[in-house]
Order: sequence, then C-alpha cells, then structure tokens
Amino acid sequence: MRVGLDVGGTKTDAVAVTADGEIVARVRRATGWGDDAVIASILASVEALVQEGDFTAADLESVGVGIPGLVEAGTGRVLHAVNLGVESLDIAARAGAELNVPIAVENDVKAAALGAAALRGDGTSMAYLNLGTGVAAGIVADGRIWRGAHGTAGEVGHISVDPGGRLCGCGQRGCVETLCGGGALAKAWGRPGALPVRDIFDAADAGDPLASSLRADLARGAAAAVRILVLSVDVETVVIGGGLTALGDRLRTDIVEALRREADGSAFMRSLRLDERIELLPSGSPAAALGAALVAASDSATESAPVDKEIVTHG
Amino acid sequence: MRVGLDVGGTKTDAVAVTADGEIVARVRRATGWGDDAVIASILASVEALVQEGDFTAADLESVGVGIPGLVEAGTGRVLHAVNLGVESLDIAARAGAELNVPIAVENDVKAAALGAAALRGDGTSMAYLNLGTGVAAGIVADGRIWRGAHGTAGEVGHISVDPGGRLCGCGQRGCVETLCGGGALAKAWGRPGALPVRDIFDAADAGDPLASSLRADLARGAAAAVRILVLSVDVETVVIGGGLTALGDRLRTDIVEALRREADGSAFMRSLRLDERIELLPSGSPAAALGAALVAASDSATESAPVDKEIVTHG
Repeated sequence: MRVGLDVGGTKTDAVAVTADGEIVARVRRATGWGDDAVIASILASVEALVQEGDFTAADLESVGVGIPGLVEAGTGRVLHAVNLGVESLDIAARAGAELNVPIAVENDVKAAALGAAALRGDGTSMAYLNLGTGVAAGIVADGRIWRGAHGTAGEVGHISVDPGGRLCGCGQRGCVETLCGGGALAKAWGRPGALPVRDIFDAADAGDPLASSLRADLARGAAAAVRILVLSVDVETVVIGGGLTALGDRLRTDIVEALRREADGSAFMRSLRLDERIELLPSGSPAAALGAALVAASDSATESAPVDKEIVTHG
Repeated sequence: MRVGLDVGGTKTDAVAVTADGEIVARVRRATGWGDDAVIASILASVEALVQEGDFTAADLESVGVGIPGLVEAGTGRVLHAVNLGVESLDIAARAGAELNVPIAVENDVKAAALGAAALRGDGTSMAYLNLGTGVAAGIVADGRIWRGAHGTAGEVGHISVDPGGRLCGCGQRGCVETLCGGGALAKAWGRPGALPVRDIFDAADAGDPLASSLRADLARGAAAAVRILVLSVDVETVVIGGGLTALGDRLRTDIVEALRREADGSAFMRSLRLDERIELLPSGSPAAALGAALVAASDSATESAPVDKEIVTHG
C-alpha cells in the first residue's frame, strides 16, 4: 500500500493507494504548526489511514509527502514552508525514522499536478495551475513531473505581464501573481474578511468598482498564465486548482470569458482554443495527496527526493 | 553521410555530417522563390555538397530540411513559408522522389535549437531564442526537441507582456515580438534602410530619442522572453540567435543589462542568475543546418516528420 499526504496550511489530506492506483482509504486531519507538530501530523495521518483502511502498518510500501515549500533537490528536506511555520525540515529523515518506509517529499503543486494527471488518466500533457495565496503551476508530460534545470519550471506566477502593474512580493511589478494570487487580491481589496476573494466577487456583483476591477484582474491573470503555459510548454490541458477554485463556476466563467475576449482580435490565439483547454479541479479532489503517493512510488521520485537508504535500513 | 539544410529566405546553408556528428562539408547557395525554385535550391545544395565533400550520392543516408514555416505534423509538408513564396509544399515527397533518400522536414527554429544543443554538447536543457523578423524559441531537453501537444511549444513571441504595448501582427497587443522582433522594430522606426535594427542602434548611440526607446524595447523584449522560458520550462541555458544577433556584443550587452536591471529589486529573480544563463550563437554558426541533419537521423524526427516509405521505395 502506498500512502500520499497533502500537508496544507490548515489540514492534511491523506490517501492510501493500491499498486493499481486505486484510492482505498482517505482521512483528513488538522495540520500542526512548526517542525515537531508537522512531523506529528504526518505520523498521525498515516496511523489514521491504517485504521481507516483495510491494511496494517506492515503493508506500507512508501509514503509521499506533498508540502507547500521549496523541496531541496536530491533530499527529503523542505525549506521556507512559511504557512506551516517551518524554515528547514528533513521530513524524509524524521518521518522515515518513525515509519520505517521510504519517504519522498515533493512540492505540493508538483504533487497535485501528478495526481491531477493520474485522475484525468488520458496520458496527454497538462499543467496544474494553482490559484491560492500565491500562483504556481506544475507540468506533467509523459506521465512525469517536468522539473526543469533548477526546479523553477512552472513558476509562471512571477512572470510580469504588465510593466505598470502592482508591485509583487517578489520585488517585480505586474507579475501574474499580482493579478490572480489570493494574497495580492486580498491586499489590494484591503477590507477584513475570512474569504476576501469571495467578498470581492460578491461586491463586484453588487456593483463595487474596486471589486469589479480586482475580479477582472483575477480572470486576466489566470488567462495570462494559461496563455503562457500553452505558448511556452504547449500542454494539452491546463487544470486549475487551489483555494480560489472554491468559487467554482463563477471563476471558471470569468476565465473562459477573458480567454475568449483576448483572442477576439487574433486568429492565431483563436486557433489555440484555450477556452476549451482549461478545466477546474473539482472541489475536494484528492489530486495532491494522490500525486504525493505516486511521487513516492515513481522513478521520478528517486531523481527529486531519493529515499534515504540509511534511514530505511536503520530506522 | 547525413545532410542537413537550413533553407532561409535569401540563402540555403547545407552541411554533410558523419555518423559521429562531425561536419565534413558545408556549402551556401542562394535560395529560389516559390515552390519549384525552393525544391531546385534543395537539390542543387545537396549536389554541391556531394561535390564539395569526399563522398558520393550513394553515401547519402538522409536529408533534413529546416525551413521557416509551419511544418505539418506527421508529414514532410511545409505551410505558410511566406519568406520563400511557399503556401503549401510537400518537400519530403518532391525532394525525396529525386534524391531517393529519406527526407525529414522541420521548422527552422526547432532545427536550430537541436543543432545548437549538439554544438554545446553538454546535454543540459536549453532554449534557442530566434530574434529575426519574428520571434520564436525552440526547446531541447534530453537531447530532443520539445514539441508540445500541438507544436506551439516555444512560441514565446506571442505572449503579451504589456497590455498598453504596440499592436502585434498576430492581433494581440504588447507581444514579446512587438518589442524585439526585427519586423516590428523596423515598422516602429519607419525609416528606409537595409538594416533597420542596426540603424536603430547607431541612431540611439547618436542620441535619437525614438531609436533609444526602440533599442531599449529590444533588450526588454528579449529579456522578457528569457524570463518566460526559464520560469515556465526552466531550461539551463537560453542561446540567442537569428538575424538580429549580427549586432553581436552590442545586443548581448543590452540584454544582459536589461536582465540585471529588472532583477535589481527581486531576490528571487537574482537567484535565477539569468544574466549568466544566456549565450549568443556565434555569427555564421551552422546550428540550423546541423540540426536539420540530426532531425533526419533521430527518432524524434520519425514522430514529427516521418519518412514517406512509399517515396523511398518507389522514388
């Protein structure tokens, strides 16, 4: 049995997957804050999964962990996982020592990309565009995560598409993320609320000019990201996920309309049929956790996050 | 012996390459205008190469043709090769019938990308960014051309990076090509001259404000293309070629300075070291012709431009 965990800022989604790729158990638990609590959350999720599923700890073959941070190439260490209160944590070593199975660690967006590709199942190339607090994409071709030379493949959030745009947290101006990142939109909106982007949509519906402008920015930024992914990598499909997709059809309709409007004057852009090449990841999709399980089981995992043989042997 | 041809708007560059990848002969001849003249140019180039090199027509194993146009997937047909007066021409069938060897046809920028990667020889991923009349890139990873789902991989020239920018020939506004395409720059400059971009550089040096602005646009557009290629595909190196690179160090210095200036305020962009990841293809490089020879010889060619077995057998 292969286990995959999507360790998010508030909750950890965990699935158990058979060798055939079937999800046979799923649990969701709160994620703790800081190094020790994150490791404890991972161990508790695996334990809950064993109880939930029809298998024992001895059946565990591998555990994959998707996590929002920079995963150090060639190790199981995550860096700068700021939403989890983690600056640098060797998850493979610490969790591996407890679980006695190979642990692979992967950036959560890349894991979700692999999982979304597996759920689609048609083997065509795709990008997973994550619209959350920030914006990034994971690219899957030939069934594998495309990492690039230094792991920045898919970092479309920090491509500037407007020299006169808002200042980005990265220091550049007019990045895609300033248009369609939840954090940037909430900051530009500037009013309190637990769900600022939903508030923006509602206020835009009520005729608020700032909200209408920000709602248009969101669609424009997501459309720009889709165009960039198709005109650079030429993936067949862009699957859009992340926290903002809780807006569902309201968001999807906006993005489709932005893509159509911007292709209006261009036969070349119309020929790309971008409006037909986007999909929204369904709410509650286990893509990220499933992808983490697949990362742990795949060859590509050994390139990016090799199992620490020392830990496995002595753990 | 494998032959590769780079069929350009004014001249055809042809090389003969051994099985080891060594270029043993090279000829350059004028390219004709229109279907029949283009085929005649190809045949004459191959004949001249046989005379120039130490081999006979019987030694020919394959001929690869790089050509500035859209190469129809799965065929040897080129479409819309406007600089050659060709609307639709089945090069593989027509030249193959005469030469009695397998003919592969490839877009010239993709062929140049493969050739540039072979000349670099270190096996790392790269993009070849062609700054000519238009702007496009070819991507090579794992020694193969990355085509994408529909052959638009590397079409970074038509990504908009400025909503208030000039109107592009493609119908969009502010495309990369409006900033750093030779055609767009010549149009914006609007003065007669055989080498308008060189004129722009000279006039900028002499203090002309329009020229200075266009020269800055060129560097800004090329820098944007480099950023897009690294932040989407994450190639290790971007090799810049095409007609505008005749400007040599003047162009290189401008692009390096644009990359550095735009990374000034961004620790993230500085960490990418883009200024160290660009190279200019040396003037007179046989990259495109060499790449065409390799396309004809490689497996990837059979995916994109398979040999027409009928022609080979009956030709």
